[in-house]
Amino acid sequence: MTDKLIIFDTTLRDGEQSPGASMTREEKLRIARQLERLRVDVIEAGFAASSNGDFEAVRGIAEAIRESTVCSLARANDRDIGRAAEALKSAARARIHTFIATSELHMEKKLRMTREQVFEQAKLAVRFARNLCGDVEFSAEDGYRSDPDFLCRVIEAVIDEGATTINIPDTVGYAVPELYGQFILNLRQRVPNAHKAVWSVHCHNDLGMAVANSLAGVMIGGARQVECTINGLGERAGNCSLEEVVMAVRTRRDYFGLTVGIDATQIVPASRMVSQTTGFVVQPNKAVVGANAFAHASGIHQDGVLKARDTYEIMRAEDVGWAANKIVLGKLSGRNAFKQRLQDLGIELESETDINAAFARFKDLADRKSEIFDEDIIALVGDESVTREQEHYRLLALSQQSAMGERPHARVAFAAGNVEKHAESDGNGPVDASLKAIESMVNSGAEMMLYSVNAITSGSTESQGEVTVRLQHGGRVVNGVGADPDIVVASAKAYLSALNKLHSNAERVAAQG
Amino acid sequence: MTDKLIIFDTTLRDGEQSPGASMTREEKLRIARQLERLRVDVIEAGFAASSNGDFEAVRGIAEAIRESTVCSLARANDRDIGRAAEALKSAARARIHTFIATSELHMEKKLRMTREQVFEQAKLAVRFARNLCGDVEFSAEDGYRSDPDFLCRVIEAVIDEGATTINIPDTVGYAVPELYGQFILNLRQRVPNAHKAVWSVHCHNDLGMAVANSLAGVMIGGARQVECTINGLGERAGNCSLEEVVMAVRTRRDYFGLTVGIDATQIVPASRMVSQTTGFVVQPNKAVVGANAFAHASGIHQDGVLKARDTYEIMRAEDVGWAANKIVLGKLSGRNAFKQRLQDLGIELESETDINAAFARFKDLADRKSEIFDEDIIALVGDESVTREQEHYRLLALSQQSAMGERPHARVAFAAGNVEKHAESDGNGPVDASLKAIESMVNSGAEMMLYSVNAITSGSTESQGEVTVRLQHGGRVVNGVGADPDIVVASAKAYLSALNKLHSNAERVAAQG
Repeated sequence: MTDKLIIFDTTLRDGEQSPGASMTREEKLRIARQLERLRVDVIEAGFAASSNGDFEAVRGIAEAIRESTVCSLARANDRDIGRAAEALKSAARARIHTFIATSELHMEKKLRMTREQVFEQAKLAVRFARNLCGDVEFSAEDGYRSDPDFLCRVIEAVIDEGATTINIPDTVGYAVPELYGQFILNLRQRVPNAHKAVWSVHCHNDLGMAVANSLAGVMIGGARQVECTINGLGERAGNCSLEEVVMAVRTRRDYFGLTVGIDATQIVPASRMVSQTTGFVVQPNKAVVGANAFAHASGIHQDGVLKARDTYEIMRAEDVGWAANKIVLGKLSGRNAFKQRLQDLGIELESETDINAAFARFKDLADRKSEIFDEDIIALVGDESVTREQEHYRLLALSQQSAMGERPHARVAFAAGNVEKHAESDGNGPVDASLKAIESMVNSGAEMMLYSVNAITSGSTESQGEVTVRLQHGGRVVNGVGADPDIVVASAKAYLSALNKLHSNAERVAAQG
Repeated sequence: MTDKLIIFDTTLRDGEQSPGASMTREEKLRIARQLERLRVDVIEAGFAASSNGDFEAVRGIAEAIRESTVCSLARANDRDIGRAAEALKSAARARIHTFIATSELHMEKKLRMTREQVFEQAKLAVRFARNLCGDVEFSAEDGYRSDPDFLCRVIEAVIDEGATTINIPDTVGYAVPELYGQFILNLRQRVPNAHKAVWSVHCHNDLGMAVANSLAGVMIGGARQVECTINGLGERAGNCSLEEVVMAVRTRRDYFGLTVGIDATQIVPASRMVSQTTGFVVQPNKAVVGANAFAHASGIHQDGVLKARDTYEIMRAEDVGWAANKIVLGKLSGRNAFKQRLQDLGIELESETDINAAFARFKDLADRKSEIFDEDIIALVGDESVTREQEHYRLLALSQQSAMGERPHARVAFAAGNVEKHAESDGNGPVDASLKAIESMVNSGAEMMLYSVNAITSGSTESQGEVTVRLQHGGRVVNGVGADPDIVVASAKAYLSALNKLHSNAERVAAQG
């Protein structure tokens, strides 16, 4: 046990499993690079065996990341573990994270296995993993609701097989801090070889206590790894928030006495990137990364704050990466300045063709918008037309009109593969009319689950609108994002982007953590 | 000390102080009625002395609410306390909540008072309050960062003066659960007359631990009142979330052993009402009230959930008021059905004229939208044109058009008092053009801080869009909300609604808790 707390980020695995938050390989790579800049110790990049797409994403991240350990999830079987090892082959530092449920409820209802079967499978899985990788984490799914006697037996056995990290998840977010801390402590005291592994906590936020539970696992239980996600992204109420755990440990170092390796100034950029990529908004009153999280950033300087900043602020906004929006580029900026800015933002486009396409879109935007912010550039390259993603549908032209008392009407032209499609429709509003026009030609049959708009930079309507459209079809949920100063155009782009993702078929296996 | 946990809701006071969350008297009344349906024990209705508007809001709520105790905040001076007592005159059960800061930092930098001055003022304030009201709460602002010796002296003195509740806020969100619980316990053990008052906790969420801190104050410290807000609304990272505290205590009754009087099925309706009124979105991965909080409500039925619901769910969505959207009314629904539905939703319009105006808007909407949901009705009556609020500006007509490659253009007609204004403008998008047209005639000079759109019912663009526009001018921040199936029309309505609020001048004094 050292005084360093290991930060294990699972935004790209447990976070991404949240319905509607699935990401493409390129999106995951961009976030992984940001996580590396954030200096997280371990990046859980995905679940390699769950789909070919996830395998490729893990492999791409393992190739690109040099500083952080890259990890893949794997169920406790040889096939999953083999796929994980294969995807991680190029990693500078690799970890295989294998899991199996140990609670009666999960063993009986989900796995339909006996205790002995689970015990054997856990042992064999870790043995197999250790032959492929020196860094093996074992998770006892639904560990907090498991019988401690059985759990101790399993943990002792997998440590004997070489597991280097033991993770005890509160899979359903049922824990309260004191009980969870005591649970971990009890396990650590009873397992004879406990000292041979790093202990880890993984908490869900269903009762709003994931951060406090994780820290109780650390302070009371003696764990030294926290599994967390940016913005607390994750299924249901999400996972423990990385930004909250990190800032709690730093702000209250007097109590925790722990160090974390995180570069906190990268927290807000990471938060924005994850929110923009997934379309999951961050509420204004979210700790650390919410728009209102810092009093002096909310536009109102309260009397108390003016008199002495620390009367109401325990952290400084700039320490976590809040900064005034800077105008970085404009109409007259050249290709080199643009390319340099991409590099500064950590955006790596894969070819000169991609850079040219992005630059063309940048010039187009600069013609319509005088001030181009970093966020505009991130949105710009997030647009599918400049990435290598499958792009079957592409918006060519759109015009629309509406007037109170008349039915809104839209005409849309778009490419579907090599075919140009033209359609028109009326609708309840101009956005509705535009999407109905597209749908009349595509006939996707998808159900819209979410439609949301955010201004990209300042709150002003002069800025680009970023529209997220979430579609569901045949059990799959995809997210399309489109940005444009014209909200109707942004909506059509987002809809086509979502259709493109539905069009590129991917199947995957679900995992829980 | 009983085993009942008192739920003190301060959405309308501490929540409302969040920049951009300010509400009109009518909005506060509507939320207070919902809080009464939720069966909160105490509703902090406002800070009567801070402005005439807040005084009227507290008075209106004191008149309307019969079941919950109605409370007003007051600084520790006779004028504030007198105003609070006056506003609470008609209350069935009234509480005066007086506060003064006790930390060195706040006394020196904010109050510029000595310890002895603060001690005397606290005593005198509680004495004065007790002469006006039998139920008096005293808060030691920034209590958790106060010197315990001094704090004990102040608390003992105010209990002697008759304070019935003692609240120890973690004003800056600095606490961690174990330390905060021990801090409360220590005070309770050292103050000789501690048993004569109910002890209360009030936590902020800056480090993401407000719920766990509050519950540690209860379990370790022995507090029996929790101060909280719907959706955790509040300045910076917000207050302790009512819904999380309540559901933690209920779900883990095995540990907490406490009862709460809350009707949990009113939680989600309350959450929606607060979010729609303030324009503060609830993130999808928010515990209990986020759109994804329940696995089976997120549109994807995971394998595990299908096999046994409790493998992944510790609460049932319907227990906290999640229900499928029901089509409640349509084109053919008459005035009586509409009026009945308003009653069922707890919406009380003040006159037949208001009901007629709302019904006219309902018919207008039903002409354009075949399925009218409860949320549509709530949005409808939230629209200023059917309330008694100041309504200087009113949208009369709007037409707009945009096409890719051309500059979007809008024409707007609106009433400004008795004058009809016509304007046109182009803009970066059709929304921008419409708002620029309005602004060209109004010349408000207001800065836009937020522009956001949410679909009101399902995610579909067929539904109404609800637009929130937040404007800042001269140090004031106001929120305008507009709903319409046409997003451009909704935006213009929201902008005019915000301008109306800026137009009705109100000054207020800021308080912290």
